Order: sequence, then C-alpha cells, then structure tokens
Amino acid sequence: MKKIIKNGILADDTAVFKADILIDGEKIAAVGSDLECEGAEIIDASGMYVLPGAIDVHTHMDLDVGFARAIDDFYDGTVAAACGGTTTIVDHMAFGPKDCSLWHQVNEYHRLADGNAVVDYGFHGVFQHLHEETLDEMKEIAKKEGITSFKVYMTYDYRLLDEEILQVLQAAKDAGVLITVHCENHGVIQLLRRKCQEAGLGEAKFHPLSRPARCEAEAVNRMIHLAAMAGDAPLYIVHLSSAHGLHEVQKARAEGQRNLGVETCTQYLVLTDDMYEDPQEGLKAIMSPPLRKDQDREELWQALKDGEIDTIATDHCPFHYKAGKAEKQYGKDDFTKCPNGAPGVQERLMLVFSEGYMGDRLTLPEVVKYCCTNPSKMFGMYPEKGTLLPDTDADIVIINPLSYTMIDKDYIRGASDYSCYEGMQLSGKIEKVFLRGREIVSEGEFLGKRGDGRYLRRGTSTLAQDHTPETLEFSEMI
Amino acid sequence: MKKIIKNGILADDTAVFKADILIDGEKIAAVGSDLECEGAEIIDASGMYVLPGAIDVHTHMDLDVGFARAIDDFYDGTVAAACGGTTTIVDHMAFGPKDCSLWHQVNEYHRLADGNAVVDYGFHGVFQHLHEETLDEMKEIAKKEGITSFKVYMTYDYRLLDEEILQVLQAAKDAGVLITVHCENHGVIQLLRRKCQEAGLGEAKFHPLSRPARCEAEAVNRMIHLAAMAGDAPLYIVHLSSAHGLHEVQKARAEGQRNLGVETCTQYLVLTDDMYEDPQEGLKAIMSPPLRKDQDREELWQALKDGEIDTIATDHCPFHYKAGKAEKQYGKDDFTKCPNGAPGVQERLMLVFSEGYMGDRLTLPEVVKYCCTNPSKMFGMYPEKGTLLPDTDADIVIINPLSYTMIDKDYIRGASDYSCYEGMQLSGKIEKVFLRGREIVSEGEFLGKRGDGRYLRRGTSTLAQDHTPETLEFSEMI
Amino acid sequence: MKKIIKNGILADDTAVFKADILIDGEKIAAVGSDLECEGAEIIDASGMYVLPGAIDVHTHMDLDVGFARAIDDFYDGTVAAACGGTTTIVDHMAFGPKDCSLWHQVNEYHRLADGNAVVDYGFHGVFQHLHEETLDEMKEIAKKEGITSFKVYMTYDYRLLDEEILQVLQAAKDAGVLITVHCENHGVIQLLRRKCQEAGLGEAKFHPLSRPARCEAEAVNRMIHLAAMAGDAPLYIVHLSSAHGLHEVQKARAEGQRNLGVETCTQYLVLTDDMYEDPQEGLKAIMSPPLRKDQDREELWQALKDGEIDTIATDHCPFHYKAGKAEKQYGKDDFTKCPNGAPGVQERLMLVFSEGYMGDRLTLPEVVKYCCTNPSKMFGMYPEKGTLLPDTDADIVIINPLSYTMIDKDYIRGASDYSCYEGMQLSGKIEKVFLRGREIVSEGEFLGKRGDGRYLRRGTSTLAQDHTPETLEFSEMI
Amino acid sequence: MKKIIKNGILADDTAVFKADILIDGEKIAAVGSDLECEGAEIIDASGMYVLPGAIDVHTHMDLDVGFARAIDDFYDGTVAAACGGTTTIVDHMAFGPKDCSLWHQVNEYHRLADGNAVVDYGFHGVFQHLHEETLDEMKEIAKKEGITSFKVYMTYDYRLLDEEILQVLQAAKDAGVLITVHCENHGVIQLLRRKCQEAGLGEAKFHPLSRPARCEAEAVNRMIHLAAMAGDAPLYIVHLSSAHGLHEVQKARAEGQRNLGVETCTQYLVLTDDMYEDPQEGLKAIMSPPLRKDQDREELWQALKDGEIDTIATDHCPFHYKAGKAEKQYGKDDFTKCPNGAPGVQERLMLVFSEGYMGDRLTLPEVVKYCCTNPSKMFGMYPEKGTLLPDTDADIVIINPLSYTMIDKDYIRGASDYSCYEGMQLSGKIEKVFLRGREIVSEGEFLGKRGDGRYLRRGTSTLAQDHTPETLEFSEMI
Repeated sequence: MKKIIKNGILADDTAVFKADILIDGEKIAAVGSDLECEGAEIIDASGMYVLPGAIDVHTHMDLDVGFARAIDDFYDGTVAAACGGTTTIVDHMAFGPKDCSLWHQVNEYHRLADGNAVVDYGFHGVFQHLHEETLDEMKEIAKKEGITSFKVYMTYDYRLLDEEILQVLQAAKDAGVLITVHCENHGVIQLLRRKCQEAGLGEAKFHPLSRPARCEAEAVNRMIHLAAMAGDAPLYIVHLSSAHGLHEVQKARAEGQRNLGVETCTQYLVLTDDMYEDPQEGLKAIMSPPLRKDQDREELWQALKDGEIDTIATDHCPFHYKAGKAEKQYGKDDFTKCPNGAPGVQERLMLVFSEGYMGDRLTLPEVVKYCCTNPSKMFGMYPEKGTLLPDTDADIVIINPLSYTMIDKDYIRGASDYSCYEGMQLSGKIEKVFLRGREIVSEGEFLGKRGDGRYLRRGTSTLAQDHTPETLEFSEMI
Repeated sequence: MKKIIKNGILADDTAVFKADILIDGEKIAAVGSDLECEGAEIIDASGMYVLPGAIDVHTHMDLDVGFARAIDDFYDGTVAAACGGTTTIVDHMAFGPKDCSLWHQVNEYHRLADGNAVVDYGFHGVFQHLHEETLDEMKEIAKKEGITSFKVYMTYDYRLLDEEILQVLQAAKDAGVLITVHCENHGVIQLLRRKCQEAGLGEAKFHPLSRPARCEAEAVNRMIHLAAMAGDAPLYIVHLSSAHGLHEVQKARAEGQRNLGVETCTQYLVLTDDMYEDPQEGLKAIMSPPLRKDQDREELWQALKDGEIDTIATDHCPFHYKAGKAEKQYGKDDFTKCPNGAPGVQERLMLVFSEGYMGDRLTLPEVVKYCCTNPSKMFGMYPEKGTLLPDTDADIVIINPLSYTMIDKDYIRGASDYSCYEGMQLSGKIEKVFLRGREIVSEGEFLGKRGDGRYLRRGTSTLAQDHTPETLEFSEMI
Repeated sequence: MKKIIKNGILADDTAVFKADILIDGEKIAAVGSDLECEGAEIIDASGMYVLPGAIDVHTHMDLDVGFARAIDDFYDGTVAAACGGTTTIVDHMAFGPKDCSLWHQVNEYHRLADGNAVVDYGFHGVFQHLHEETLDEMKEIAKKEGITSFKVYMTYDYRLLDEEILQVLQAAKDAGVLITVHCENHGVIQLLRRKCQEAGLGEAKFHPLSRPARCEAEAVNRMIHLAAMAGDAPLYIVHLSSAHGLHEVQKARAEGQRNLGVETCTQYLVLTDDMYEDPQEGLKAIMSPPLRKDQDREELWQALKDGEIDTIATDHCPFHYKAGKAEKQYGKDDFTKCPNGAPGVQERLMLVFSEGYMGDRLTLPEVVKYCCTNPSKMFGMYPEKGTLLPDTDADIVIINPLSYTMIDKDYIRGASDYSCYEGMQLSGKIEKVFLRGREIVSEGEFLGKRGDGRYLRRGTSTLAQDHTPETLEFSEMI
Repeated sequence: MKKIIKNGILADDTAVFKADILIDGEKIAAVGSDLECEGAEIIDASGMYVLPGAIDVHTHMDLDVGFARAIDDFYDGTVAAACGGTTTIVDHMAFGPKDCSLWHQVNEYHRLADGNAVVDYGFHGVFQHLHEETLDEMKEIAKKEGITSFKVYMTYDYRLLDEEILQVLQAAKDAGVLITVHCENHGVIQLLRRKCQEAGLGEAKFHPLSRPARCEAEAVNRMIHLAAMAGDAPLYIVHLSSAHGLHEVQKARAEGQRNLGVETCTQYLVLTDDMYEDPQEGLKAIMSPPLRKDQDREELWQALKDGEIDTIATDHCPFHYKAGKAEKQYGKDDFTKCPNGAPGVQERLMLVFSEGYMGDRLTLPEVVKYCCTNPSKMFGMYPEKGTLLPDTDADIVIINPLSYTMIDKDYIRGASDYSCYEGMQLSGKIEKVFLRGREIVSEGEFLGKRGDGRYLRRGTSTLAQDHTPETLEFSEMI
C-alpha cells in the first residue's frame, strides 16, 4: 500500500522545504515535488509541517522503585508517546533484585514491553553493581540484544563508586557501548535530606534546596574526568538541569573532551522551582534533579542554540497524584517520601515546538535535531529513525501550526491523572502520526493497537565511533 | 526529458545518505530510493558522491584594473568554473570611470556576461564614491536587477572613508542590501609599500610583509564597529586571511554582533607565504590580502570546524604569468607593479573536498555547507541553488572519491597559464556536472555552450532578514 | 629642618601599616616605629591615613583651544591640585601654530608654568604634524628636556593619519619615548556632529550620542594594532571611557600585547550621561570622550579591580560656566560650539578615596597604585614620586577618614565657577599636604607660594623599558 | 641591642628600593636612608638584596606515617629551614590514634616542637574523622591555641567523606577557621595502584601514572563546590601540581568563587616526571601528588605571574634514601610501599629566587609575595611576619645576587641524605638570616640554638575575613 503526503512543509535537522513524501509500505520511498503514484492514498498536508517521528531516549515505563511503581506501563505510556508525536522510545530499566545478572532486567523488560508497546522501543541497560562477570554480561547483551547503552547512577542506593565507574567506562569503550549517567553528589544530598527531616522541613519547596545545582555540577565534572581517564570513553549525561552543570560541560569541551553527549529534559526548559511553592501542587513536580531557577532555564535554551546540549528527552515516570494509590501523596508531609518522577512523554514534542520554535528560541530544524535526529544518532538508530531520508522508516508527524493544543485533563492519554503543564495553551497541534507507514494517530485519536511497536536492536552510538585517541590513557593499559 | 541519477551517495549540508535523484527538465523532481520513471535516462552513480553544484560568490571575471585586465572573460572563466564543479558564480564588479553612476557598471557587466557565461551568474554592485544620488541608485538596482549585495573597499584609490561607509551601511540596512567589504588599512599599507620601493625591496617576498595581518585585523574590527553603529547592518567580510583578523570576528560575536558573514578563500586554507620565497614563482601568488603563515591557515580551518567562518570562495582573478602579455611579470623587479590576483575558481571545490573532507578536517556536509549552501543563503539564492531539495534547480556534481585529480598544465580550463596549486594530487575526481538538468561536464570535458548560463536576480540575504534590533542606534535616527 | 609624622596609618601601593615618617629637608629619611629625632617638628597623625602625594598625569592648564582658553593657568590650576592632595602634574600641551617646531610649545609651556606652578610639574609633548625634522625634534626634546612622553590625536584638526602614527611609534620606541593617544574615530564623529547640526539637535544630550563608545573602541583597537606593528611600541591610552573600549584592551592583552598602559579619568568612574539630560547643567560636562552609561562605569571599576586599567587621571580643563566669558555657554544652542573640558584636578584623589576605598570598590593600596605609584612608574618619575620609600621626595598627603568633604562653591580652589560633582559629600578629608617636605596645605588652606613647583625632567617610562621583542616587525626594518 | 643593615636593596611584595633597616631588639624599628644610631652594630649589605624572612606554610616535621617517620624532627628540619632563609614554618600535623580528640595531636605537636624548633612555628590542625564533638574541639583549639587552619584529606585512610567535609566547612566558616585540603580522588588512585601491583608494575615511573592529574582536578573542583555550598567557606588548596587542577581553579574564579587560596610547591615548578625514569633515582621523588609534565610546570609559573596561585610551599617530608633505615628503599620493587615525601624546606627560597627571579619568570616583589607576604596573610600572621614594615618582627634574609649556591651533599643541613635538586647551581646565595633580630645564619653556618623558635598563636586568615555573602546557602540554614 502506498501513500503520498502532499504539499506539506517538510523539516529535517537542517532545512525547511516544500515537498511531497511517497510512502511505500513501512518506508519513505521518495521526497519530491508533485509526486504521483497510481493508486496511492493521498494525504493532504497543505499548510502543515511534516517532521520525522520524534524519539524520546529517556523514559521509565512500568518502573518499579520498590515502594511504588510508575503507573504508565508499556501500553499506556507508548499510547501517550504516540499521541504526542513520539514514535520511538528508549526506556531506562529499573534496578533488579540485589546482585542479579544484567540479563535479569533485559528479560524482565522484554516481558513488560513485548506485545504491549505501540511505538518502536529499545532499552538502556543499567548497572547496579560491578561483579566479576558484569562487564562480560554487558558485552554479550550489547552484541546479542543490540542494547548499546548502559546507565550508571552516582546517587541512590545502587550507585557505583568512582573506581567502579572507571572500570565500566573502559570496558564500554572497548565494546563500543555508550555509558549514560545520572550525575548528582550522593553524600551531600543524603546529608541535606536528613537535615531537612530532622528539622521538620518536609514541604515540597525544600526538595530543590536539598539537591543544589552544585551537586549536579560536581558530579558532571567528576564523571567527565573519569571518562577522560578511560581514554575519552563515550559518555552521555542525562537530564542536565542547571547552569552550573552546563558550565562544567563547557569547560570540558573547551579543554578538548571528545565523545560527550548531553541531554536536557522538557521540564528544565519550561518549568522552574516556583512550582514547589504550593505544598500540594509542588508534589507533582518532585523529581531528581529538581526544577531550577529561571536563570538556569535561560542558559539551557541558549546552550541548545549554541549546540552545547545535544538532545531533549523527558525522564517520563508518572505516579498518581490523586487517583488510585495517589503515590505522590506519600510525600505530603515529607518530600523525601514522595516517589521521584512526573509524566512528560506526551507533552515533549509540542512543548519544544511551541516554546522553542514558535517562541523564537529555536529554528524548526533545531527542534528536529534535538527531538529526532540527534537522539537517533547518539543511540545507534540513524538514519533509520529521526530523519525524512529515502529508504528509512516512515515515522512521520504532521503538525498544524495554526491550530493549538490545550493541556488539560482531556489532553492526557497515559495513565497519569495530571500534567505538570496543565493550563498551558501551546501553539500548534498534531494532526497525524505515522509509525512505519501506518497512521496511528489522527486528530488526537489513537488508531493503533497494542503490540504494534517493534523492539529495536540498536547499533553503535556516533559517540562510540571515535576509537583512535592519539595516546592511550594509563588506565586503559593496565 | 527526465533523468535518474541512481545509487549515489548524496550529501547536503547536514547529512550523507544513499538515494536516487529524479530530474525533470531543469528541476530536481524527487529524491528517493529505487526511483523509477519510464523513459528516463539512467545515470549510474554507484560509489560516487552526489553534491549540489558549487557556488563561488567571489570571482572577478574580465576585471579591468586599469593597467591590466583579468584574462578570464565570462566565457573562459565560467568554463573553468563548470569543470571544477561550480555551477553558479556571483561576480564582483570592477570600478568604472570616475564619478560614474552605479548603473554604469551594471550595464557594463551585463554586456560582458550575458550571452557568454556558461554557468548561472549574478553580480555584486560596487561603491567607488558616495555622491548624493548613489544610495538611491543602490536601492533601485537592488529592486530592478536583483543585485542585493554591494561592495566597499577600505583600501585602493576608490576606497570609501569611514563616515561614507557608515552612511552606506545605514542605507543598505534599510534597503535589505548586504554590504561586502575588503578590509585592509590603506594608510599603513601605502607607507610600507613606499618604504619597500625606496629601499629597493622589490622581490615577491616583501609583498606579504607590506600587508601585515594586523592591517586586515584592524580594518575588520573597524568595519564591524561601523556596522554595529549602523544598527547591526548586514555585513559580509570577504577573503579573511589571517588569525588576527579571525580574532576580531570572534570578539565581535562574543559581544553579540549580529548579521555578520565571513568568507575565506581556498588559497588561505591551502597555501602559505612560503610560496613567495622564490622571486619568480612568488609572482604567481601576488594577491591581496597575501598568503599568510601556517598558524593562520590552521586557525582558519578550525574556524570552519567551529562555524565561525561561513563561506569559502576564491577571489578568482587570473593574469598571465608567461604567455601573452605576461602581466604578472610587470612585478618582477617591484612587486607593487604586479597586478593582484590569481586563478582559483576551477580548483576550489576539489581542494576543499580533498584537503578538507579527505584530509579529515571537515565532514562532507561541511564541505557542502561552505561551498554550496551557505553561499546560496547569504546571497539570496536559497533554496533554488546550493541544495538537493525537490523542486529546486538540478545543479549537481558527481564526484568519484576513489579516483584522483592531478593539477598540472593539462588540468587548466580557463585562460590562465598556471595554477597556484600545480603539482598537487587531489583525492577525488569530478565525474559529471549538471546545470539545471543538463550535463555540462563529463570526465573533464566541457559539454556546454557559450551563453548557457542564466543571469540570477537574487533575493534578500539571510543576513539582511533580521530587521528588528531592540533599540535604534543614534546614527539611524538622524 | 626635620619633621616627624607620628602615629599615622601609612598606605603605599601594596600595604597598610602603622608607622612614623621622618622627613629630612625635602626627602623622606626614614619610615619606622617610634621614630625620634631631637629638634624635629612633630606632626601628629593619629587616626589619619598617610599617603604619597598624588600625581595627575593628564591636565590641561592654560590650554589654548583657539576660540577659548582653559581658565586655570599654572598657578590657579596647581593650587587646586595641591588642595586636592596632588603634588605632581604632567600637563598635556596645546597645539601650537601651524607647522611649528615641537620646540615651540616646549618653550611656550616653560613660559606659562615656570615661576607659576605651586606643585611639581612635567610636560607631555604633542604631535600636530609629521614633518621631516619632527622625529628628530622629539628625540632631542626627550634628551634635553626629560620630556619622555608625547601625545598624538586620532581626532580633531591636528590628528595624525594612521601611517604617520606608525612612524611616530617606531621612532618613539627607538628613543625610549612613550606615545600617549586620544582614541576616537574622527570621520564618524564629524559626520554625526554635522547631522546633529543639520537636524537642529543642539542640546547637550546629543553630545554623547554624537561620540558613540564604539568610536572610542574602534580607535583603541586601531592604535593597538599600530603599536604592535611598530614592534610592541610603548603605548598609553588616555581617558578610556567605555566598556567597548575596555574590551579591545582585554582582547589585545589576551593576545599578548606588551608595553601597553591604560588610563581612565575620575569622571568616567563617578558620573554618567544622565548629567546631559538637563540642557543647561549638561553643558558643564561637555568633554570628549563624553560621559557614558552606568554599565560602562561599572566595568571600568571592575577593570581597576582586575588590574586591567593602570592609572586614574582627570583631563582637567575647566571653562567658565557662568562667570566671566562663560565659555561653556557658547554651546547652549549647539553643543558642538561648547569648548570641551571640565575641572577635576582638585576632586580626583578624594573622589577615588571616597567612592573607591570607602565605597568598597578598591583597597587603599589600590587607590595609591592608581593615583600615585603607577602614574609615577609609567611616566618616568619612579621611585622619586608616588611612594613613601626612604630617600625619595617627601610628597605626602594626610587624610582624616572620619571627617568628610562637601563639594560646594566654597570647596573650589581653582578658577572654575563650578564642579561637576557639586552636591556630593565625600567620606574623608584632606588634613595636610606636603611638597618636598614643606607643608603647603593645612585644613583646606593653601600655605604655599607661586613658583614653588619644580620642573621635572622625567626618565624613561616602565612601558618603554622593554626593548627586546623576540622578532623585529617588518615596519621596524625598513 | 640595635643593628643597622646598611645600603641594601630592599624588596617587599610590591617594590624594590635602596634603604637601610634599623633593628631594635626583635623588631624592625625603621626603614630609611642613611640611618644612624649610636652604638648600633652595622651590617653592610652593599650590593645585596634584603628580603623578609621566608615562610613555609606546608611542612611535615617528625611526621609519623605508621610504617615510617619523617626523619627531620623539629630541630633538624628547622635548622634546614633557617639555612634556606625560612624563618617561619606552619607545620601540618600527622594523624593521631583512631578516634582521638583533635586536642591529642595539638598536645603531641607541642611536645615535639616546643624547645626544639629554631625558627618560629605554628601548626595546622587536622581532621581524621567527624565525631559529634569534633567541631567544638576545632573552635576551642582555634580560640585557645591560635590554630586557625585545619586540614582535611580527600584521599588516604583518614579521608573525610563529601558530606563530612561540607559540615566541617560550615563550622569553619562560622569559627573564622581556614580549611586546607589535599585534593585527590581516592577511589581511582586506589584502583590504579592495585592494578599496578597486580600487573607487577612496581617501578617509580608508574607512580605518576597511578595518580593522574585529573584525579587532582576532579577533587579540586569537588572541594570548590563544597565550599561554595557552605556559603563560600574559606578554602585553601595545598600543593596544586597540575594544569588540569589549575583550570578548575580558573573556572571557579571566573564563576565568582570567593575566599579561595591556592598553593603550589617548589617541586612542581622546578621538576618534572622525567625524574621517575630511573627506577632508583625515581624513589627520591615519590610524593603525592607526583611530579607532572613540562606543560603543567609552565602553566603553574604562568599562574603565579597572573596571580592565580597565591603561595609557594614545600610539603617538606624527607625520608632516608640510603642512610639509616633507607625508608625510600621500601619502594624499590613496589612504589606503593615507598613512604611519600621529599625534602625541600631548605631549597625553596633560593630555587624561587634563582628559577623565578633570575630566570626572568617572576619579579623580585613576586618572589616575596609568594614566599613571604601571602603565606603570612593567608595564615593569620600579617603584618608581623613576611614584611619589612616598621614595628614587625625583624625576620630578614640577605642574599648576594652575584654569588651562587651549589646544591650538593655539603649543602644539606637537615637530616636527609639527598636533595631532589642535587647538581643544580642556583644564581644567588644567602649571606645572612635574622630571626627576630638575631643573626641565626651567616655564610651557610647555623649560629642559632635549639629551642630559639617561638610558637605562633595565629590570627584569622585574610580568606576568612569576608563574612557577608549576600545570600545564605541552604546548607547554612539547616
């Protein structure tokens, strides 16, 4: 079955131009002017923007945090993604049982996602310890499963120590695996949280104060030095939230650090810690790192403009605010009891489109670069995903720039009972979404079906393709 | 008549990808995989790179400098361009008779070029004085002729004074015209040249010493301040040659200067002032600004890598070295008598391809950006020229990366009897060149005919599209 | 006759410490604790600050500007200086008759100053043309008169051209002479002034608009490049007024420029262009460069803090505002008719003390460095002037930090009928001033007599003592 | 008894000038020209430099590291100091028994030093744990003992954790105490040392490879963030050794960090890791951090020139190389077994004088600033120590710039049997040293006697005098 999207204004990561797209089966067959093809279904996109399907490389579907479980499973969460124009996710695994093999969670996540997801999906592996066999498991999983990125945490109970991280980075570099990392200084945060508890400072507004931006910055810099000592091992910093953290990235780049990728998330670009002022409403945005100041927000936008940040993701991880178990309310008297996380996978693309492009902070190609193309390149899916190039997957979003999107209760497609962005009216509206040639969303309605998503064996990150440092670091030689 | 270029590896300013191109008449009709079209001519490009036709925005065909005339007329010069993969030029006019109207040279250049050029061509206007009616002429010419860029000189007899330049910039800004500028400090150069003559220092090696890099840097900075005082008037610095000059650009950008474009030329990226060591050979490279040091060359490449320079052009302006009048020999005892200029329009694209891309200094999309796309954008020809987008002119170059190009006497296609790059063996070879769908070069042979080139009425430069500074400069108000 | 200043808190350019000073005749004999000397006069300075006498290296006493003459002659002006704690001035000569020898003004200034000045004084020479013999005259004057600094102007009728300045710099470098320079772009300023006149924009508030900060910055950068091309010739930029100008200095220093000194003036540190708002009051502050914005002022203070500016002077050059000929009123309908200049030599030290030290922007040693020690070093008077070292001239100021100085009509000691700082109440008050051991001011009363000042044959500037650049610039060789 | 040092060339941290010094008892009574005093002993210093006695704020006399003890006790070590022109040391305490009170080592060090030291001495306290009462002990010791600086280690067994350091910094800030810190990443170094042992890489040349510069840089940055989170708590980084570490300091200062002091040591300015090439000789320079590359060395000199480093110390801590127990030989097959440390207290001043001043890297006032005045200011001894101001301790060094110092076996005055600088011939030679007015060294001979040194109750560091951050950090409030 063929389709032609006619008369749209196409945008990839470099240009905006008027053209038709011919879809043949699951693939883009041609991009051209006045394309014709007998029997093809014609989709009129006059006056519409036509973008590659978006990619969210930081979600936590069905995440089990022990005392709570993220309420979007792979079905609900990917329906939300689809309705928001995201046709691919790469999900960060939860920690498994103590001392479990890295394979444990790989298997668990296939069980959770296979047959449920409605958009294409991959997984990031996760380190929760460093046993003798762990690094071999990583290499095996990269090879057999196409899981070519693994995460380490510098905070939380299952964080790795600096010396363990160094070993992980060396092995990852050898294996062509990208290490992604949550950067925050564990000790200081634990101290400040404990002090808050002792002082009875339990309101939401103390959450950001207990996780200062400098805790992120310190950890970012530490991680960068570790990667450098591992021979410029490929490194990807997730959810950068602060100007202080950004300055460390800038310093490292000025000093010649290579193979470094940096992600921020929609919430750090759109929201600020004003949101914690109300003790109740504030619970909605309890996440780590926390929302920051206006100055941080502006520097992050500028960094996107300057090409110093590479991707925009969400860290999507919703819990109920009122409905059901109302997990967020666990923190109503003590923010440290509140499960970390908030929804976002549905909102991301249109927030960046509206606040970034329509708000004159980014060009349309920059929107595509940060939401589609760069995520694809950095996580081994290029050019199959995140582009409008011929012979790649026909993942496509059609946006009406003259309509608008109201974020309210009716808007929400996932399991969450709130959005952090409620009340915002975004410029632009998603008209249609195609996943590998099939129309899965039309005017806000989800048309796909459970299990339509395909598991992605990913290739090597562009960050991991630079294998020839001029001199070996000592840590690599012994 | 339709054509399909099959199986090539396409490169635009952002991506490298495998696809076919369908040409319908003068236009690219589609870019796609496995394109088919009954009756279309098939051009096999397996293993070849397929790029947009290159654009050289700085040539001087048929330039009359008074005591000599550049020996490439619009036929010879554009044949050379075509054979080098350049399908569009924007030519810088010579000065006309004293006090002549701006229209004088416009008419003169139509006379010289129309019916002769074999690639598409536009003109830059030139200021040689500032009379009462001059600025009105500029506006009229921009409107009627699509000549949307005008040049001023800060050196030479027909240079403008600072206060005149300021007025030109203001008027240009109002009219959406881009001012291009040759930046060198006139007084110092005149002094040093005179001192050289008095001291009998006439050899070629004294040429670069008489035009120090700081003379360029000083003038670059002066010009930037003038543009800023005119309200960030659109400004394009031609043939930046030195690290000192570059540092002024960097400082200005760090201070927030907008609407600034910067060009360097092939010779400053490939050659150094070593070439002046031999008194005879040195004459070949007498040009202004002169060739610089290795350190300058390396900083210019790095600036391209960092996006601080926007375009690569040639300042193509050949004179005979031995044949005919041997104009370059006028300078054999006194370099100040040597006409300034050297050939380059034919060599440029493959030099940048070979030294830049194959030499691992630039990516292939960067080659396209600096030789094709950015010149198009900055001089009002986008997206018609410099891209592979559907529904734009089918100007296309096919390059075989596995073959090579030897620069020797046989290589030269223009009227010049030498090349500054003789003896170099470049990686890659141009297989075919298409101008608006017609194959005009094949395996080094020129297939086109005199007059095939079309005059380009150009639109507004991207640099001139930013019309809303937050506050008016005083110079704009009075 | 011996004197001991007892129990004061001494400040030099590096330390603040409690000690006595023994004065023997014209010299400081010793600095020590509990100094005793039979028969010595005891001056109790308990609780007082004791500083070296201040040096103002930029004054214009008796300046003849053609249509007006600065109203402070060498007597009135130096009485004002003395009362303000300044015991040494270096005066900038006016231009002489067209084509006159450099000696003309030297002789003229001796005639004006000798036997009149009440503080020690030197002269800066001035270039107003570059004839064949001019550079020889400079060398001769430096040698015979100890006039080791000469000024060039980049604006005004007697400005030098760039190529002339280059030659002056080369000769000055050879002769160990320091070139001081007034940096503003002549052409642009002339244009803007003419436009103002044509448009009838004659009020004082148009004065700063007609001399934009970028005109200063451009000229600063041009001058720096000229000095570099002359082989890092010693260069001293007078009255830097703007952040834009400062940025050029910073860039040059970061690029390795040597032998560069930079002066700002009190008015650019204390006042802003708000002062021009009132058309009448505004006339008081018509000077060139004009007063700037608050942002400029703050950056200048910061530059002092960072050691990027070397001296603070005044450009003292008063005219009557109401009394006598009321020269400033010439500009009441057209600011271009107003003679440039304002008083300041009396106010400087206490303004810097109060706004700088008491206002927590500078330390006390920094006040001494910028008002006393650096001026001495840069103009060849070190260590004789500007320090409290033993065996140097006993030029000393005693300041009571607990008293205050009200700037009002009664305060003024020179011929001027106004101060730009009227209404300000400064923290601190000058108690006594000593010139070469003699008390010339006590509690605001001038005790000295006409002609007490001594002419200073100055030595070589510290900026001119660095004579061995690694490589000769071409301009030096021909 | 009075003395006059006549005709010397005095240098303090800002000026070089000719003057006499009158010493009355233990104090400098006066600095002046042609000082006379009946009955005073005259010391002729014609042609000599006269400097304040030097201060070494980083020594480890009698240091007990468990398996070895530094061989210079407070007598031998201070004799070496005295002979090298150092009249004051501030010694870093060793760790005491597990869980001991902070008072334990204070008492122990009085036992070791009192009655033995021959120059004046103070102690830095040391944290080896953070128990409930530890911070109170710190405050008490600061108050009662004048020990106003305490050290924390980020590596070694008794290192503190990040969260403990934060608490120490807060308390120190409140108490006006300066925290000094040894910055290296513990985990990575432990890993690399273990790997070296496992791989049998025991030679000295693997020592620097096991402690990469990035381990220092990471820890420097972490510490700086911790101090900032404690409200810009006063912080002093000891023995900075690398360019990477320096860059972190520069970044922090550019971001506005206050109250930050940085020390480097002579060995990092003079030696490089070439010294480890020979497996035997290399043992002499086993210290932490290790010697670095030539590039690091040059950047450290430049940082002194730019005022980015504040002091030069030694980390003096010698062990026998051949004689006695030959402790350094413990590491001959495994560098990890070699006790860390080397001598240096005797060599420092003349190394900095010769390599810095005579080698044209520093001015003489800069030598005084980094070796005398800044150490005094930063550790609460100003102006009593480190200056030539009247009424301060007459600690004075007289140096003959025309003689030289050969570093060979005969040179060594401490207990060590080697110097890292053996074979160097330094320009300049110490003629005499005075401690509080008494001549304790003359032409290389020690004239003093055991116990002449006086314990120094120190005041507040200049770094700890800035007590009013504009906003309180959260960590300070809870």
